[in-house]
Amino acid sequence: MLHRSILAAALCGIVSVAAADPLPSWAETDTKAAIIEFVEKVTDPASPDYVTPADRIATFDNDGNLWAEQPMYFQLIYALDRLKEAAAADPSILTSDTLKAAAADDIETVAAGGVEGLLEVLAFSHAGMSVEAFQDDVRDWLATTQHPTTGMRYDAMIYQPMLELLSYLRDEGFQTWIVSGGGVHFVRAFAEDAYNIPPEQVLGSAGPTEYAEGQVMKLPGIDFVDDKEGKPVGIDSRIGKRPIFASGNSDGDFAMLEYTTAGDGARFGLLLHHTDAAREFAYDREGHIGVLNRGLDEGPGHGWVIVDMANDWEQVWPE
Amino acid sequence: MLHRSILAAALCGIVSVAAADPLPSWAETDTKAAIIEFVEKVTDPASPDYVTPADRIATFDNDGNLWAEQPMYFQLIYALDRLKEAAAADPSILTSDTLKAAAADDIETVAAGGVEGLLEVLAFSHAGMSVEAFQDDVRDWLATTQHPTTGMRYDAMIYQPMLELLSYLRDEGFQTWIVSGGGVHFVRAFAEDAYNIPPEQVLGSAGPTEYAEGQVMKLPGIDFVDDKEGKPVGIDSRIGKRPIFASGNSDGDFAMLEYTTAGDGARFGLLLHHTDAAREFAYDREGHIGVLNRGLDEGPGHGWVIVDMANDWEQVWPE
Repeated sequence: MLHRSILAAALCGIVSVAAADPLPSWAETDTKAAIIEFVEKVTDPASPDYVTPADRIATFDNDGNLWAEQPMYFQLIYALDRLKEAAAADPSILTSDTLKAAAADDIETVAAGGVEGLLEVLAFSHAGMSVEAFQDDVRDWLATTQHPTTGMRYDAMIYQPMLELLSYLRDEGFQTWIVSGGGVHFVRAFAEDAYNIPPEQVLGSAGPTEYAEGQVMKLPGIDFVDDKEGKPVGIDSRIGKRPIFASGNSDGDFAMLEYTTAGDGARFGLLLHHTDAAREFAYDREGHIGVLNRGLDEGPGHGWVIVDMANDWEQVWPE
Repeated sequence: MLHRSILAAALCGIVSVAAADPLPSWAETDTKAAIIEFVEKVTDPASPDYVTPADRIATFDNDGNLWAEQPMYFQLIYALDRLKEAAAADPSILTSDTLKAAAADDIETVAAGGVEGLLEVLAFSHAGMSVEAFQDDVRDWLATTQHPTTGMRYDAMIYQPMLELLSYLRDEGFQTWIVSGGGVHFVRAFAEDAYNIPPEQVLGSAGPTEYAEGQVMKLPGIDFVDDKEGKPVGIDSRIGKRPIFASGNSDGDFAMLEYTTAGDGARFGLLLHHTDAAREFAYDREGHIGVLNRGLDEGPGHGWVIVDMANDWEQVWPE
């Protein structure tokens, strides 16, 4: 691929930056070739599959897709940390079985409640302050805590191959959006530093807010769950265009990939399969976090490309 | 201003496109000078008020601010047209006093219900189809109907000075967002053609939607009213940054301007006062559409600039 690009550039009399490998952490497998083939055909004005830059919308799930999500969603770990601090001061705040389980680190019980159960815990610890104050607290937490098994900062557990894919797509005129089941204010707190994605290109689950006297305040509760069928709904609401490229890793992303690839013209669906227990984590059909069943069963029939992390990635974390 | 810019460019040895008047339809008044002074100081890297391009967020109300809104919101006229067609075929659909008044063209009664009353009518005629089908219908309606007094297409009743302001801000590195009390799907149907603002930079009121089998369908009802305190809430939710420039024309925009100018650093609030009965419409404190009281009373105390349409604009409509 590299040699052909250089040859083509030489034949055209152009030495182009694009001749460099845009995805150096991806192994030279069919997966990488399929990504590059798609990007080249939708960006080549002479191609029948050409897509105007304004319509080059790419959407990415976050948890387990741009950063890790084991042993549980990092936002949940943040919420538990803050909940436990508050409960230590006043145990009467634990008004439900889910909150009691959370404060006791009984994660199985919390996670068994699904996204709604998780969001109950998040909602508790994410309300009663301004958006700015909340995001300052998230950044403070990220700067001062480490992942329990890797010892890394949570915001260092981002995937180098996905960073390269984001950059490659942006270099080719795509808008790269995050469409996360996680909370929109939480993800925005680090997405610009971690992924070079600005707040206005981050969608996520959201609680109610209220404006008063120059401030937007976070209130308890959940207004919008940006997961499963909520992802295409959120994409329509926020972006207003059907993506041409979507990337996810769990059945929570199935509807987003389906919506994306159901459109006319060239489309690309990418599913990250966590197959790499040695360098990251290996999980798919079982458990409560990042479960992937429909995607493995039906994805290939939709033409989606499944990333085998152990074989398709030469490197997992940034240097 | 023009001469000074040319002189400055000549002294620097640069003949710059920026030397051309960016706002030719604006009269040479204090209003125009204040806009240009603000833009220059936040874009000059040597200025203490410099703002990095990523934070140059400008938000614009739509009805009565980018296009006209008399004798009533154009989206309401569209909704009434469709409601009357449906009621002619089946009168039993008129299940509330508001809907009956609407079908009888009793606009005073509908408008007296405020934004919620208006939205009831909109919700009725805006559901039960895909987003794409709805937007095709809106574009079809815009292409085939005329304003009752001007005889112009509704999407030609956009303000030339505001088109210039949008372009000027974009040329200076701003993002220009629409933050409309009107429906987000309705405004997106024409905003790109009319204002060069893409769907992903349009916020508006919204009804519920549902994803099924590759389509996002519009459902009846209202989920979010992007008016008054809803505007800063929507801005936080969708953009995630506090604007540095906000432009509106009614008390529905008061909270947006207050939120904008309550931030640190240089900020700009612009209120359009409809003073021009000869070329457009003259209205402010009375009526149900575009009422402006608090803005006139309290805006100057906030440092907001009030546009006197009759004196500050040399031209209203595009040629």
